Amino acid sequence: IYIIYLSKGISAKEICSLASFVLALQRKICRTSEYLSSTFTPQFRLALVQLHVSKIKADNLGRAQKIVKEAAGQGAKVVVLPECFNSPYGTGFFAEYAEKIPGESTQVLSEAAKECGVYLVGGSIPEEDGGKLYNTCSIFGPDGKLLVKHRKIHLFDVDVPGKIRFQESETLSPGNSLSMFETPFCKVGVGICYDIRFAELAQIYAKKGCQLLVYPGAFNMTTGPAHWELLQRGRAVDNQVYVAAASPARDESASYVAWGHSSVVSPWGEVIAKAGPEESVVYADIDLQYLADMRQQIPITTQRRNDLYSVNSVQEG
Amino acid sequence: IYIIYLSKGISAKEICSLASFVLALQRKICRTSEYLSSTFTPQFRLALVQLHVSKIKADNLGRAQKIVKEAAGQGAKVVVLPECFNSPYGTGFFAEYAEKIPGESTQVLSEAAKECGVYLVGGSIPEEDGGKLYNTCSIFGPDGKLLVKHRKIHLFDVDVPGKIRFQESETLSPGNSLSMFETPFCKVGVGICYDIRFAELAQIYAKKGCQLLVYPGAFNMTTGPAHWELLQRGRAVDNQVYVAAASPARDESASYVAWGHSSVVSPWGEVIAKAGPEESVVYADIDLQYLADMRQQIPITTQRRNDLYSVNSVQEG
Repeated sequence: IYIIYLSKGISAKEICSLASFVLALQRKICRTSEYLSSTFTPQFRLALVQLHVSKIKADNLGRAQKIVKEAAGQGAKVVVLPECFNSPYGTGFFAEYAEKIPGESTQVLSEAAKECGVYLVGGSIPEEDGGKLYNTCSIFGPDGKLLVKHRKIHLFDVDVPGKIRFQESETLSPGNSLSMFETPFCKVGVGICYDIRFAELAQIYAKKGCQLLVYPGAFNMTTGPAHWELLQRGRAVDNQVYVAAASPARDESASYVAWGHSSVVSPWGEVIAKAGPEESVVYADIDLQYLADMRQQIPITTQRRNDLYSVNSVQEG
Repeated sequence: IYIIYLSKGISAKEICSLASFVLALQRKICRTSEYLSSTFTPQFRLALVQLHVSKIKADNLGRAQKIVKEAAGQGAKVVVLPECFNSPYGTGFFAEYAEKIPGESTQVLSEAAKECGVYLVGGSIPEEDGGKLYNTCSIFGPDGKLLVKHRKIHLFDVDVPGKIRFQESETLSPGNSLSMFETPFCKVGVGICYDIRFAELAQIYAKKGCQLLVYPGAFNMTTGPAHWELLQRGRAVDNQVYVAAASPARDESASYVAWGHSSVVSPWGEVIAKAGPEESVVYADIDLQYLADMRQQIPITTQRRNDLYSVNSVQEG
């Protein structure tokens, strides 16, 4: 407890030294509160919005906004929309639905985040920038400000004969950065759909302190049943993090039929929330104390043999 | 086609140049056959021996030898024994059952490999060397020669309250090398049990050309149902390789109860062979053409963003 007595005859020098004392005190308070928030591992509610995406952009935006509000009303602090939430998914649609960022769709996201006071992981939209198209996820804070923008790094170019052929690279360009953002709860790493197949991304996010990984994604009727859950559970248990993946609702009449089944996986590899194929919101309570306990019980994070191998982000050397 | 005429009046110089010509020809033939074998992607049969491990070492060795023969009789070209196949698994047993390598147990393995003409991944045994104990897997070729020795890199030190506590490091020392070996079918990477939790090992093996990873392992009644299959399927689909894990049979009367369920997983992440909990042998036909096809269909091996991240073996810089 500091008690500061001020008298009328205070000199300029005394005012200066008083001011620097107050500043030092303020820094001390900041550090203490930072310390408290860094050691405080609370629970928070996460919501995945498994949106039905139609061909009418305005409808998609309106419904997304409405459901984000609904999720916030249920106590969600972090809300995740699916990949390509404002447009049907398909190389034939990307150019038509593409926008600049900021633009119409991200404006809606920004306002929804602010109105609801949530961290909003805005699924993804086709982004146009400098004549190129990207598959881009914009993340907004509870103040409505853009925190980070993730452009899908790994384009979905696959060809399983008789099952699924898709070549995102026919129209899209890839992003060139990993993307993380801070919340008062934990640091979060972001990937989009096919990005989840590349374990290195998750490994680097975990190494940099992310405790939750979110993947807006739209797996299909071939890779969905085969790998959607396996990949999420694998990333979760290998890195002892929570993993959340939000899909569009399944629409059998669409040219690309999404698998649905948005889900959240615990660091133990358990599916703790899972949607069916239809439009819905799933909730999960993220328990960072549970995560910390698990890391103590099976301490692979400290047992890694850094003398034998390493996973590194090349951008940072 | 080369036709070489020899006459009686051949000079020493001519003999020399002829010899060097023949040697060059031989090198050419070798290179061609190497090339053919490197592009030839055959099928081969793998067997996992889910051995019942008792406290009587001679029994364990005898039964292992008998079942390896049985597996070879079924056409297996690569046979895998479980972790700690000559000794009960437990820190109280390791010192008592430990041997030098070569020693009694590895002599049995070498002879079995030679007699049956198989590649024999000798599960693991407690190894004594220089006053230290290791959990070591010895691999023998069809000529009975030791190809490589893998000392478990990541010791099993876990503590899940009320479920499982085990501290291998109380008695064992860790290995310090990754271990691969060549077969005429494909290159194989080796880990022991807890090593499978560390994704980097599998990533480096795959990067170095391994198409099959084998993990002798003894998961327990807590981590077995939670992670045994998930980890194998994760390694398989992330690296598009075959993964095989051989467990001892479950023995409810043992101090450490192994989960069993030895299994083989395809590069697509499908469990293609799986034992129950009891002593048995499971077989899987490893199809390297299928692996190659899958890598072409979902080409993550070539789509990795080496400009953004890398996984490296530190030993080699």
